[in-house]
Amino acid sequence: MTGDGTAVDVAVVGAGPIGLAIAWRLAARGLRVVVHDPTPGSGASAVAAGMLSPVAEAYFGERQLTGLLLASAARWPAFAAELTEATGVEFGYRTEGTLMVGLTGDDLAEARRLWAYQQGLGLPVTPLLPSGLRDREPALAPRLRGGALAPTDHQVDPRLLVPALRTAAQRAGAVLVPRPVRRLSDLDARVIVVAAGCGAAALTGLPVRPVKGQILRLRAPGGVAPCFRHVVRGYADGEQVYVVPRADGEVVLGATVEERTDTTVTAGAVLRLLRAGVDLLPELAEYDLVEAVAGLRPGTPDNAPVLGPLPGRPDVLAATGHHRHGIVLTPVTADLIADLVLTGVPDPLLAPFRADRFPGTARTIQEDPWS
Amino acid sequence: MTGDGTAVDVAVVGAGPIGLAIAWRLAARGLRVVVHDPTPGSGASAVAAGMLSPVAEAYFGERQLTGLLLASAARWPAFAAELTEATGVEFGYRTEGTLMVGLTGDDLAEARRLWAYQQGLGLPVTPLLPSGLRDREPALAPRLRGGALAPTDHQVDPRLLVPALRTAAQRAGAVLVPRPVRRLSDLDARVIVVAAGCGAAALTGLPVRPVKGQILRLRAPGGVAPCFRHVVRGYADGEQVYVVPRADGEVVLGATVEERTDTTVTAGAVLRLLRAGVDLLPELAEYDLVEAVAGLRPGTPDNAPVLGPLPGRPDVLAATGHHRHGIVLTPVTADLIADLVLTGVPDPLLAPFRADRFPGTARTIQEDPWS
Repeated sequence: MTGDGTAVDVAVVGAGPIGLAIAWRLAARGLRVVVHDPTPGSGASAVAAGMLSPVAEAYFGERQLTGLLLASAARWPAFAAELTEATGVEFGYRTEGTLMVGLTGDDLAEARRLWAYQQGLGLPVTPLLPSGLRDREPALAPRLRGGALAPTDHQVDPRLLVPALRTAAQRAGAVLVPRPVRRLSDLDARVIVVAAGCGAAALTGLPVRPVKGQILRLRAPGGVAPCFRHVVRGYADGEQVYVVPRADGEVVLGATVEERTDTTVTAGAVLRLLRAGVDLLPELAEYDLVEAVAGLRPGTPDNAPVLGPLPGRPDVLAATGHHRHGIVLTPVTADLIADLVLTGVPDPLLAPFRADRFPGTARTIQEDPWS
Repeated sequence: MTGDGTAVDVAVVGAGPIGLAIAWRLAARGLRVVVHDPTPGSGASAVAAGMLSPVAEAYFGERQLTGLLLASAARWPAFAAELTEATGVEFGYRTEGTLMVGLTGDDLAEARRLWAYQQGLGLPVTPLLPSGLRDREPALAPRLRGGALAPTDHQVDPRLLVPALRTAAQRAGAVLVPRPVRRLSDLDARVIVVAAGCGAAALTGLPVRPVKGQILRLRAPGGVAPCFRHVVRGYADGEQVYVVPRADGEVVLGATVEERTDTTVTAGAVLRLLRAGVDLLPELAEYDLVEAVAGLRPGTPDNAPVLGPLPGRPDVLAATGHHRHGIVLTPVTADLIADLVLTGVPDPLLAPFRADRFPGTARTIQEDPWS
């Protein structure tokens, strides 16, 4: 029940971007929505870089995930416009595109293998000579051996996005309850949406596990914008790294992918990230290092999210396991989960991401197998 | 005047290790001492590594400074024992000695040139083969080309030392006044001691300028002691770095020396420090990075401190400009400045460090020429 005694249609667990966007969509359609989270936006999104990169992140063996990433990225322009209209706030949505680069000959060979795969899927990847790279971004290291442009891979600032989504959800009528949910049985609602990131495992028994990522935030000295405008992703002496420029001078440099559950920042990870970043963009050495932090992504056995009803619980919808893709997948997740709540009919796009695809997933709520 | 209406014998400006040690010595001899500092221990000492390294830091062209460093290091064992007796607290005084190492052939050639100079001064420097290095510290990188032991170069933890000195000074009767001193003319005391670090310039007109240092603090994972016991100083691909192990698992990794007055932490400095540290002690890559910070050392034109009366002001004694050597120089500074206050006769050791040695230093208090 909400505070005013009316029945709750949907209880959303988790006020990260996924949960808030779902709540926004449902509340805007007239449903009574309550979002439960003691610390909204404090999960993976607080650490995320915010790349909207379905092309650069189209990896071997993940075609179904790539399809969903592309579908969601295609929704981002309209989603961003709607969010701006609903809130009037700026959340760092930028469309300069992404440069993919290789530092050494070995790096370039590795990168070209991936770009050929991406081109084979029909994705927009335009190879560039070193001179073409530097024409677009003069700050790139002169020794880069080559690169490619993914013009449709964009970015948004997750630390601005979450407050914007929260405003949008609340203006549409959703109610935020700043208390944790220990058990789904504590919730009284027609439908429950579990958008709790890593916390989904304990609530649902789904095989969602924390995947540690360490990430740095730098700042251009003197309060100016960074010395580059594109998102830069690269291979640098075997190290994969991305560098994301923000209009306010911030530069996000990330990220490790570690099968660990702690959130300590290690000397070796900071060293590797800084070395690769400075190798690609030497001017970064002069930037202030303002934050080094680790977060936990909600990973699944196949790296793809879990979207839809729990086995045997049609009233409980999972919207979790977004791993490294939570920000780009926010629009499609919100739209399709909202449609599912409203119509009861799953969109065909959701089929590969059913909750019952993992062998051994219990048909009912169980203890967290990862804890 | 002190709070109880009695006349003040000595007003000390600055409650860093220098000011507090002087206050301790003078109060213990029966003088009425007031120490002025709004934020005790917040200057260079809060960032310092605490090496007591007169041998490893005996550089070309600094023989007079080296003499003072050696004199002070020789006083450290008794000083530490007295401080322990006066306070009962632990301040991380350790006597395992310092290993000096060279990573590459070029690094070793550069290091050997310095070790030969140090040996020429009669200082205890014992060359070691790579095997001998690793016998003493198995965690050192196998690729190190060589090293030397400076067994008399020790360490102390400045963040523990300052509170210990404060306790000792207060127990001896010194009074701390947590207010800033804007002008020396605001002080009412028979003698004024200016131990204000970088702040001495504005108060006295002495050519003391801030010299930026960036430094990292790591921590061994799991709450254990670090994987090495000696202080390690090294040349690593041309980068000079030191690594200081503390009993509680902390490792201090430093430090840059920059002619800058800001205290921002830069990506390039952190990268260089981490790279050199991990090159010398590979296990550090697994350590938590818990702090990256910059401080300002009080430097002088000849890198040596200023110890004694201001020109034309026999009642105002400077004890500042300790640059990179404030911790090791604390005992000799405290003893000799206290003796000067009590006897009016300067110790011959002080002669090279007079305040009037810099051409152009005004004979009276003036505006800060560096601001």
